[in-house]
Amino acid sequence: MPPDPVPTTIVLLSGGLDSAVTLAIARATGDRCLALSFDYGQRHRIELEAAARVARALGAHEHRTVRIDLRAFGGSALTDEITVPRDRPAHAMAAGIPVTYVPARNTIFLSFALAWAEVTGAARIAIGVNAVDFSGYPDCRPAFIEAFERVANLGTRLGQEDGRSTSAPPRIAIEAPLIHLSKAAIIQRGLSLGVDFGLTISCYDPGAGGRPCGHCDACILRAAGFAAAGAVDPATR
Amino acid sequence: MPPDPVPTTIVLLSGGLDSAVTLAIARATGDRCLALSFDYGQRHRIELEAAARVARALGAHEHRTVRIDLRAFGGSALTDEITVPRDRPAHAMAAGIPVTYVPARNTIFLSFALAWAEVTGAARIAIGVNAVDFSGYPDCRPAFIEAFERVANLGTRLGQEDGRSTSAPPRIAIEAPLIHLSKAAIIQRGLSLGVDFGLTISCYDPGAGGRPCGHCDACILRAAGFAAAGAVDPATR
Repeated sequence: MPPDPVPTTIVLLSGGLDSAVTLAIARATGDRCLALSFDYGQRHRIELEAAARVARALGAHEHRTVRIDLRAFGGSALTDEITVPRDRPAHAMAAGIPVTYVPARNTIFLSFALAWAEVTGAARIAIGVNAVDFSGYPDCRPAFIEAFERVANLGTRLGQEDGRSTSAPPRIAIEAPLIHLSKAAIIQRGLSLGVDFGLTISCYDPGAGGRPCGHCDACILRAAGFAAAGAVDPATR
Repeated sequence: MPPDPVPTTIVLLSGGLDSAVTLAIARATGDRCLALSFDYGQRHRIELEAAARVARALGAHEHRTVRIDLRAFGGSALTDEITVPRDRPAHAMAAGIPVTYVPARNTIFLSFALAWAEVTGAARIAIGVNAVDFSGYPDCRPAFIEAFERVANLGTRLGQEDGRSTSAPPRIAIEAPLIHLSKAAIIQRGLSLGVDFGLTISCYDPGAGGRPCGHCDACILRAAGFAAAGAVDPATR
């Protein structure tokens, strides 16, 4: 299949703040954006509703949700019934890999994005990982993203056309535009691109109607980010 | 979670000949073997029944089937309604990427295996890829396997414990014991390990009861392999 002539980016979209900004950045390049979400047995399906709202609001060309079965392997507070920690200070979060870590999650998500990229001829896959606030997650670091980009180009038709050597520049780029940004910088970038953060949800343990708990790691990082950015979080109004 | 003290290999098991031999090789090391299959919208679910039979016969400790949704992206004869080619000579098969190629398939399969490895503390993931007969598949080559091993070790907790540098030897090894073997050599290896090939199915287009068609690429390669190995294929008796 020949590559699609329309410049295209696959954007991993979770319904959270970071991936919304990632989509806005990809849209600002003029690329056609194909948004990809995963139904992986999250306890809070409200995330998927947020992803659909964000995709629509930010002009994604298409939004697909792939159902996968990470519960089969267990191992995380987001898919198991482990208690989500409350009111941890940021330095405690940074001390190790969070209990909310899902095994191999970004590897799996990027693999599905790669399949869609291969079918559509997309030259870019964008992921909203962030190595500053999420330093505890092994699959949010630059070396991981670079290693996956190599897999993407060795393991697909697109990367292998015309007998290109493996040292040639990648034909599929894995882009992580937030990787070196603080949460405050991510929020400022999103505001400058017109992202409505009221559509997003970050909370690990939301209440009725998706109301953020205000006490989990994600709520605390988000609140600190809005405070540092000098902005008000519309999701908490 | 501490690594499991029982030496463990995750084995990707398709129901075909190659992955059966891969499981037999892993079992021969004495490792506990956890067999992993995928229900990805194959047209022929008989493959999954074959995988279950093979797992049982070869003493896998456990066999899980993860349901994934590759049909969402299309792009291959094995999941779409493209016609499977018949009676192609081997040199025609070798001329390009087969129409039966599924986008990013091995990347996706290895990613799920990685999640299970991380949860169970498995130190090895074994995959029955073969670069000789399947030279047209980009994700069956040594460079791809090596690149995925790097992703596995950078993207998981196991690979990152104790602040190890990224140049340290991998803690999760991706093993592809058949990668340099011909089909005949794979069959001979399996026979020496007691694999009952009558339990396996290779055909892309089987008839009633899983009877191989004898005309698709997989049937032709299999028949040539048994002939070269000087053996009779019990599946065709």
